[in-house]
Amino acid sequence: MLLGRLRQYGVSRIYGVPGDYNLEFLDLIERTPDIRFIGTCNELNAAYAADGDARLSGVGAVLVTYGVGDLSALSAVAGACAEGVPLVVISGMPPLHAVQSRALVHHTLADGDYDNVMTCYRQFTAASTRLHPASATMETDRVLNAMQVARRPVYIQFPSDICFAEVDAPPPVLASQASDPALLARAVECLTQRLARAKRPVVLIDAMVRQYGLGAEVLRFCERYAIPYAALSTGRTLVAESGPLWLGQYGGMASAPEVAAYVHASDCVIGLGVRFVDSTSGYFSQHILPGAMVDVQPFSLTSNGENIQGITAANLLDAMVRRQGEQPPTTRLQQQVVSGSPALSSPAGEEWGQAAFWRAVEPFLRAGDVVLADNGSSMVAMLHAHLPEQCSLLVQPVWAAIGYSLPAALGACLATPRRRHVLFIGDGSFQMTAQELSSLLRHQCNIVVFLINNGGYTIERMILGPQAAYNDIADWDYAALPAALGKGPAPLSLRVGNAKELDAALTRVAGHEGLAFVEVGFTPMDAPAGMAAMGQAVRHYDYGFGTPDAP
Amino acid sequence: MLLGRLRQYGVSRIYGVPGDYNLEFLDLIERTPDIRFIGTCNELNAAYAADGDARLSGVGAVLVTYGVGDLSALSAVAGACAEGVPLVVISGMPPLHAVQSRALVHHTLADGDYDNVMTCYRQFTAASTRLHPASATMETDRVLNAMQVARRPVYIQFPSDICFAEVDAPPPVLASQASDPALLARAVECLTQRLARAKRPVVLIDAMVRQYGLGAEVLRFCERYAIPYAALSTGRTLVAESGPLWLGQYGGMASAPEVAAYVHASDCVIGLGVRFVDSTSGYFSQHILPGAMVDVQPFSLTSNGENIQGITAANLLDAMVRRQGEQPPTTRLQQQVVSGSPALSSPAGEEWGQAAFWRAVEPFLRAGDVVLADNGSSMVAMLHAHLPEQCSLLVQPVWAAIGYSLPAALGACLATPRRRHVLFIGDGSFQMTAQELSSLLRHQCNIVVFLINNGGYTIERMILGPQAAYNDIADWDYAALPAALGKGPAPLSLRVGNAKELDAALTRVAGHEGLAFVEVGFTPMDAPAGMAAMGQAVRHYDYGFGTPDAP
Repeated sequence: MLLGRLRQYGVSRIYGVPGDYNLEFLDLIERTPDIRFIGTCNELNAAYAADGDARLSGVGAVLVTYGVGDLSALSAVAGACAEGVPLVVISGMPPLHAVQSRALVHHTLADGDYDNVMTCYRQFTAASTRLHPASATMETDRVLNAMQVARRPVYIQFPSDICFAEVDAPPPVLASQASDPALLARAVECLTQRLARAKRPVVLIDAMVRQYGLGAEVLRFCERYAIPYAALSTGRTLVAESGPLWLGQYGGMASAPEVAAYVHASDCVIGLGVRFVDSTSGYFSQHILPGAMVDVQPFSLTSNGENIQGITAANLLDAMVRRQGEQPPTTRLQQQVVSGSPALSSPAGEEWGQAAFWRAVEPFLRAGDVVLADNGSSMVAMLHAHLPEQCSLLVQPVWAAIGYSLPAALGACLATPRRRHVLFIGDGSFQMTAQELSSLLRHQCNIVVFLINNGGYTIERMILGPQAAYNDIADWDYAALPAALGKGPAPLSLRVGNAKELDAALTRVAGHEGLAFVEVGFTPMDAPAGMAAMGQAVRHYDYGFGTPDAP
Repeated sequence: MLLGRLRQYGVSRIYGVPGDYNLEFLDLIERTPDIRFIGTCNELNAAYAADGDARLSGVGAVLVTYGVGDLSALSAVAGACAEGVPLVVISGMPPLHAVQSRALVHHTLADGDYDNVMTCYRQFTAASTRLHPASATMETDRVLNAMQVARRPVYIQFPSDICFAEVDAPPPVLASQASDPALLARAVECLTQRLARAKRPVVLIDAMVRQYGLGAEVLRFCERYAIPYAALSTGRTLVAESGPLWLGQYGGMASAPEVAAYVHASDCVIGLGVRFVDSTSGYFSQHILPGAMVDVQPFSLTSNGENIQGITAANLLDAMVRRQGEQPPTTRLQQQVVSGSPALSSPAGEEWGQAAFWRAVEPFLRAGDVVLADNGSSMVAMLHAHLPEQCSLLVQPVWAAIGYSLPAALGACLATPRRRHVLFIGDGSFQMTAQELSSLLRHQCNIVVFLINNGGYTIERMILGPQAAYNDIADWDYAALPAALGKGPAPLSLRVGNAKELDAALTRVAGHEGLAFVEVGFTPMDAPAGMAAMGQAVRHYDYGFGTPDAP
């Protein structure tokens, strides 16, 4: 029953690790033609992979075993919750007879408590349940509907002895998110009036646009009304990043000056799910003129203290577009600015270093690539890069767990196997989840992995302890890993330490199918532009010394 | 202040990963001469390493960053809680000003909630706190005292901006666990009477003996009263496993028949912290005669319905020994039985396979070795092996997380650097936490790693899905990993696929200093004796089919 429901919600891949409480569920998956089980090396990586999959396919699923499994995945699930990624986490748990008798079994504290894991998951999910034959359908639908509405993770405990319980289930009632017509009309009126009065409106794109799949609607809305748009780092590549209306990335003082200037002077900032987090706002340096914000959230609009609920953002955008009809865009278009990628321009004459690397990498990226950048140098650089048309950028700036991107790349590759994937990851991040490289090989993923080897946690060095031993990590022979983590023909693996080697490597890799691994060596304090300023802001915020300003 | 307190509680190594909320704490550690920071590849591994350290040194410590770090470590901390291992988990968290203003910062859900991580940790720790300058000393002492009393993990959140706050702290009041004299006298009287009436007493050793460091006291008690003793799998190698009083391992039907027979016929079973968990009791097949149990727990004694609290097990054992004085042991000694290691005797004539391997490995082990065996084949085999004198066996049968033993070995090696360490780990377990092999190399650990390569999750195949694809894992070139995960001279790494190669490898490895890695190949359904029976018992318990009996 549950597997059928998962199909109806769009699940076609379940990531996870077998365990003694989920084996029958795995048997069920093997008999279900449209759902594949993708085994990962551990559970944290399974949840990261499902997250990467969900960001491209719309929904992710994880199957683990109780206690050891679901708790190992918890941080990744919390990350999906923080970033608004819908996941179904299914935990095969001890049989109901054990739960009911409070039996002391392994994978528990052996104290009869079967509620502690649920208590943890409740903190980081939109809904959670323990299935029981008497209410399995109702509970499954409740939880999956909550995922559909909130577009965040949900958690289902599946006792091992009820896997094959026969349930006569009605067809699912999928969550309807229709707007109330009167309230929608009021919201349209409100937004129309705001726009009519606005001299310099701007749209700010945040993760909601990915969560609810609104990319096309947002673009149509901006085009019909000729409103320039910018994206927070959490909202990148969700709407075409080209054309006259695209301003660039907005993040307070961390924006390009012309983007910041435009937003800060706007009298009508239409925020689409906007949430200013330290890491997406240049440490809260956003400046929105008083009263300028029109706050559109998934199910509400707030403007000048008026809060309209009972609508959906999708319906609102549609209605706005229909209202405008085919009228030509207003003249606002001329207020548009052009934003370069200033952070990637590097000191002249510098032959090798991160600046040279990122400059060379930008033209390597192709239209349609899925680009993943781990936290640290890679994300800072990619958020400042100009990405070609139809690229998708997968980053995790809010939860900001290093190591996220490698397993997430597995999910991305399986979700969009025909696209090329390009992963940028630092050595410290890579070591966190390195074993999942073997799954990229096992599934013959089409991916180029750039391993940025700068000898430790450079992002932390920028904050505190530039020379401190605690920011050092073990040096690996990274380029030897792809051969060790698979059997069969040795994958393409290269080492790059200067501009000439990089050129040669990019040429070889560009023509390569399957996995290519490129280890790129830098010195520890070399970092993309913007990192030092970020480090200083963090140091001030976390520890109270220095100034918050960029140097 | 906190670091001083940690020293007083015996902490000399802190495992962890730097993060932007704990960097000042790391600076403090660098200035503290008696405490070392040991960076690991990720936080789960840090907590496993601290667990391995604590099992040998008495206490472990972990330093992580908020959200991404502490949640990643949670499963390992829950494991330490389940198995009774004292750990201090310190999480560097966002600054107090952010917490108090409910700021939306990274490493949180960015919803202003700063309680969700604490709620999770509360489920799996003996005590937890968030430090504040106004109560830092009191709270630190409360939490560390709780660890000392319960010998389980505790959790401390350390806001990043109060690291250097000066605190005038009084000397710590260490938890006193003295017994009430009258109640202790009554407990001694009670136990003495039970022993006087007993025809066939036996002592059962469980994890409490490790938690409270009672090994010497227990041996003295058993010798003075000439009481045979057996150990649960959770209580192995805590008391000398030789001499006329040592019976063997007891775990219900999973015991050697003569051990089971002895315990099942005993009229006075003195349980030292005994807790019958599915995995330590042959799926609840223990048989204790009605009224036979004398249940000694850390702070209580229960016998025939009488429950005496306000005492400590340590004081009770001491008082019993003093009371007996130098009287010669009674004649009970003659009831002693001799237990072999039947599970490791293999079919005659078999040349290669797990049986042959484990038979060959037993004489390879030396007095004083620290032996670690991961869940699955390795643990099943080692629990049935005869271990030489002064060996320590580190296993995790209650929490039973695969992958535990490799990072735990790092902690064990650093806790007891002069001892040789021998790790047995399956391929499925190894892939979980494989990157920590690099830390074993980085710290020049004295360890032999036997990688049991049987092509997947054999322990799960024994339960369900012997041929199922979900129990397969990617095949790695394991023996190539030690060279890839370090730089410098290539470590000793060998591949073994038959008895002759094994002989040669054991000889080479026996004379080797530092890390030696031996990949040993088997077929997927080859497993040590006892695994099939275990799989059948689990299948019946979890899924309700088959019979609970061993084949």
